[in-house]
Amino acid sequence: MQILDLLFGKPLASGEERAEQIGPAAGIPIFGLDALSSAAYGPEAALTLMIPLGLQGLHLIVPITAAILILLIILYFSYRQTIEAYPHGGGSYTVATENLGNGPGLLAAAALMIDYVLTAAVGISAGVGALISAAPKLQPHTLALCLAILLILTLVNLRGVRDTGVAFLIPTYLFVGTLLTVIIVGLVRVFASGGHPHPIATPPALPPATAILTTWLVLKVFSSGCTAMTGVEAVSNGVMAFRDPTTKNARRTLTIIIALLIALLAGIALLCRAYGIGATDPNGSGYQSVLSQLIAAVMGRGWFYYVTIASILLVLALSANTAFADFPRLTRAISLHDYLPHVFTLRGRRLLYSHGIYALVGLTGALLILFGGVTDRLIPLYAIGAFMAFTFSQLGMVVHWWRKRGPGWQRRMVVNGIGAFATGITTLVVLTAKFLDGAWVTALLIPLLILGMVATRRHYRRVARELADPDPLNVDNLKPPLVIIPLDKWSRITEKALRFALSLSSDIIAVHVETADDHGTSVCDEWESKIAAPLRAAGMKVPELVTLKSPYRFVLAPVMDFVLEKEKTLERRQIAVLVPELVVRHWWENLLHNQRANVLKLMLLLKGNQRIMVINIPWYLQRG
Amino acid sequence: MQILDLLFGKPLASGEERAEQIGPAAGIPIFGLDALSSAAYGPEAALTLMIPLGLQGLHLIVPITAAILILLIILYFSYRQTIEAYPHGGGSYTVATENLGNGPGLLAAAALMIDYVLTAAVGISAGVGALISAAPKLQPHTLALCLAILLILTLVNLRGVRDTGVAFLIPTYLFVGTLLTVIIVGLVRVFASGGHPHPIATPPALPPATAILTTWLVLKVFSSGCTAMTGVEAVSNGVMAFRDPTTKNARRTLTIIIALLIALLAGIALLCRAYGIGATDPNGSGYQSVLSQLIAAVMGRGWFYYVTIASILLVLALSANTAFADFPRLTRAISLHDYLPHVFTLRGRRLLYSHGIYALVGLTGALLILFGGVTDRLIPLYAIGAFMAFTFSQLGMVVHWWRKRGPGWQRRMVVNGIGAFATGITTLVVLTAKFLDGAWVTALLIPLLILGMVATRRHYRRVARELADPDPLNVDNLKPPLVIIPLDKWSRITEKALRFALSLSSDIIAVHVETADDHGTSVCDEWESKIAAPLRAAGMKVPELVTLKSPYRFVLAPVMDFVLEKEKTLERRQIAVLVPELVVRHWWENLLHNQRANVLKLMLLLKGNQRIMVINIPWYLQRG
Repeated sequence: MQILDLLFGKPLASGEERAEQIGPAAGIPIFGLDALSSAAYGPEAALTLMIPLGLQGLHLIVPITAAILILLIILYFSYRQTIEAYPHGGGSYTVATENLGNGPGLLAAAALMIDYVLTAAVGISAGVGALISAAPKLQPHTLALCLAILLILTLVNLRGVRDTGVAFLIPTYLFVGTLLTVIIVGLVRVFASGGHPHPIATPPALPPATAILTTWLVLKVFSSGCTAMTGVEAVSNGVMAFRDPTTKNARRTLTIIIALLIALLAGIALLCRAYGIGATDPNGSGYQSVLSQLIAAVMGRGWFYYVTIASILLVLALSANTAFADFPRLTRAISLHDYLPHVFTLRGRRLLYSHGIYALVGLTGALLILFGGVTDRLIPLYAIGAFMAFTFSQLGMVVHWWRKRGPGWQRRMVVNGIGAFATGITTLVVLTAKFLDGAWVTALLIPLLILGMVATRRHYRRVARELADPDPLNVDNLKPPLVIIPLDKWSRITEKALRFALSLSSDIIAVHVETADDHGTSVCDEWESKIAAPLRAAGMKVPELVTLKSPYRFVLAPVMDFVLEKEKTLERRQIAVLVPELVVRHWWENLLHNQRANVLKLMLLLKGNQRIMVINIPWYLQRG
Repeated sequence: MQILDLLFGKPLASGEERAEQIGPAAGIPIFGLDALSSAAYGPEAALTLMIPLGLQGLHLIVPITAAILILLIILYFSYRQTIEAYPHGGGSYTVATENLGNGPGLLAAAALMIDYVLTAAVGISAGVGALISAAPKLQPHTLALCLAILLILTLVNLRGVRDTGVAFLIPTYLFVGTLLTVIIVGLVRVFASGGHPHPIATPPALPPATAILTTWLVLKVFSSGCTAMTGVEAVSNGVMAFRDPTTKNARRTLTIIIALLIALLAGIALLCRAYGIGATDPNGSGYQSVLSQLIAAVMGRGWFYYVTIASILLVLALSANTAFADFPRLTRAISLHDYLPHVFTLRGRRLLYSHGIYALVGLTGALLILFGGVTDRLIPLYAIGAFMAFTFSQLGMVVHWWRKRGPGWQRRMVVNGIGAFATGITTLVVLTAKFLDGAWVTALLIPLLILGMVATRRHYRRVARELADPDPLNVDNLKPPLVIIPLDKWSRITEKALRFALSLSSDIIAVHVETADDHGTSVCDEWESKIAAPLRAAGMKVPELVTLKSPYRFVLAPVMDFVLEKEKTLERRQIAVLVPELVVRHWWENLLHNQRANVLKLMLLLKGNQRIMVINIPWYLQRG
């Protein structure tokens, strides 16, 4: 237990929980991290697709970013309303289930679960991408670095996130501060130089164009860029955590986060075009992230460069933490509706839903290993889940306003309707554009997950029906069971087992299996002197002794057959099979004893039925 | 079961065993295989060490072979006497234990066990070596081929060797026949050409000498060549299998085997010198075995070459089979003296001591993998075990004659005494010469094995003492146990468990663990209506209900603490803990239910003691 305490902290009693009460200043790092950090990989993902376009890509980045920002503003107004309507937290799963029913709720649930796993995987891999840009020598260790960060996040999260407020605050503001500084300084230089600034560290030259611009490519670039929006839902999910006036604080936080995100995305797009910065091949040896190029071009590779890169790495790793905070809550909510195993509702030693964390870590680790820890390969799977969840959430809100018809319901319906329409279209665009690149994985996983969840619920319901007992205890026919004891030879274990049997019931059958290979005295030889005589002397009933011949030298099969045969002939009678077992002091001593007791217990459990119980009589070997 | 029947044959009843009764014609293949086949790797092992000597090595092979043959003849006379003295089978373990005591017996046992494992490994690897000489393309697959042959041998042996007589007969006589033909034809050609025959297929030229001849090297070559003697003991081991007159038949068989072996070894040595054939580097790409070169030189690479090579491969693989036949008998004999786990005394479905086969296969496989399936690397470990066993066996015979003092006892003592002296000296020579090359592994394993065997016997003796029960059944104080049932909520499982408890005893304590995270009704809420009221109505004692608070949300630890506490306060009282358990229909359904019942059973077994029994109440979920 001491090692556990050291690693994960001492157990927390249920009463030690404290409600967090935060304002916008603390809310921005906690709920905005996921959204803001996506500025570090969204533009990168879009520009990577434009590598084949060469210089022409640079002209495209600004209009595509503009389209993304418009979508972001629509989402902003939509989610403002969700916050108002669900002051206790309006995640997509809740909103969709409550307003649209179980089916859409499950769709949103599956989409969100996949989305959270991808948030963790993409956050970690993008963080490592930033690190590699600053220290290219580390590139061969990409996957190992990813898994190391995953391990650190796991340990931190299994201790609990109660005191991580400060850990979030500093890197988030450092990230926003340094990146905004780069953007402002850069824009001033662009303006001063008449649109043609001179980079301090020259970015790698853009490769010659090898493809021509098509609508298809524009759609793909747009889809990749949309990954910059995936964290927007977080605030509406956690409204409850804000202090009074809850709704107002939450809305203000959302406003600031979206405004910052718009500034970052717009600034990056403008500077990329002005400085002629494109993406580099993430699998190539000269890989350098877009932000790394940008910061170096504007500020040079001095201390400021390294501070900014460090804050990006930190913020991306911490953004993976959003998944650690939200995924277990989501699985718990789904599990409470019987759609996931009930373990997800159990709180571990540190008051966390630990099994949700285990599941997240397992899935994220698998994803990182499968895709080698390269962000660019993960991106196509991403976004779909998020946009699907957005769409169902907004659709749910439309129904919500329609049902409620409070003041201004038409206006609100229209706002959420536009949101639903825009995100719905985007979902389709992302799915189509990215299908072959990897979105098919997500498209396949969602129905599989839903099937699994439905099967889980069906199982739980069936078990609950079968176990439900409307009647009080039935006290009829409480006859002691028939006790069957397999015996080998007379020993202390035999005596202990027989004594226990005699204390339970007067109906006892001792079973001895006789094989041709036996040597030495068996219990049959001593039956009269050791067992029958003393019982008769005490006026007690002598157990029946049955000898089973085993020509094939099997020992357990004849016992099993005998028990099942008895069970068939004696209707309504309970049968207790006594299994004497030697318990050794050291594990290796098990090698010296056959494991018949364990095998018999397992056989009885697998082949047995409602009327067969197993009674384990342990004999503990003394020390020394 | 059907797959098992197909792979291993249907189970055999104990009565189906039939005693084999063989004469010399069948005895030579069965008991001589190991000895005769060593002609295929013994000279090879000696010549390999002489590679650095170049041409000079060739002159050395004849005198060294002569020394080996003298030793062989000494052994022959020694073992003739063992056969006479032990008509029921005189293996080294038996002879050493009976005449010298347990200590030397264990030394012989350990040496023999290691020797058998090496017989299997060397036989297989040498067979594959012969195959590779004929088809050099297979060299990269050496290890895979070795393991494949091991697998085939395992399957054949697990079916039993009852009808393998013919399988042994043909390849053995083919091997002896073809090889003797090669030797006779070769010697005639040597004689006809005046000592300088012209090879039909020229063997690879001998490399230039890179080392000079030292006594040390001679000792090493002699030690390696001694591996050709390892199979000599087999006949004396299996005297019982011969038909009347048993001793005479066995001795005649031994005579023929030794005579053949002498002819083969002497012939090979003479021809190698005459044709200028040396060993080639077994790790190099141009590897060709000595016998392959020899056959090709004398007979050319026609059909005769391939028939001979095939018979060598077969005989070597079958010689590994000697280990499969003898190792399980040896482990059984040791296990009957409590020095090895008792499973080695159990006969499996095909009347074999299957666990001995499993152990042999496991160890041989490990050895082959460790040494990459190369015979040359295994040889240094070999021979020591065999010669150690020889020495103890002969020493035992010396004591045997001394004790008996029958007619001619002095002469017999001298013969076995010379045998013991010669093999003892050889053991020391082999150990010294091969120590750094790998003999240290054997030298280390033998004491470790002995330590293990002694510890095993000590354990068995201790357990037997502890379990021995001289008194008849004690019928005092047969009070029903105190029954403790952990309960969660009212359900059919709860009802079943309670009913079983009521049928066993009137002293029942129901335990409910309450954590802060519980939701819904617990068994406490329904205690009065569902349980207490009907029992009171029936005039029965109502169980005690104990609620355990669990602030840290642990469920099983409080139950364990309660049980142990009760056990401590109630002296001499038996305690039965009822563990209700849900048994699902499909394994994957286990994921949906917590495994608390299994964990509790395990905790009770590990932390419990003599007075705590576990009663498992299974509830089988219905289908559909």
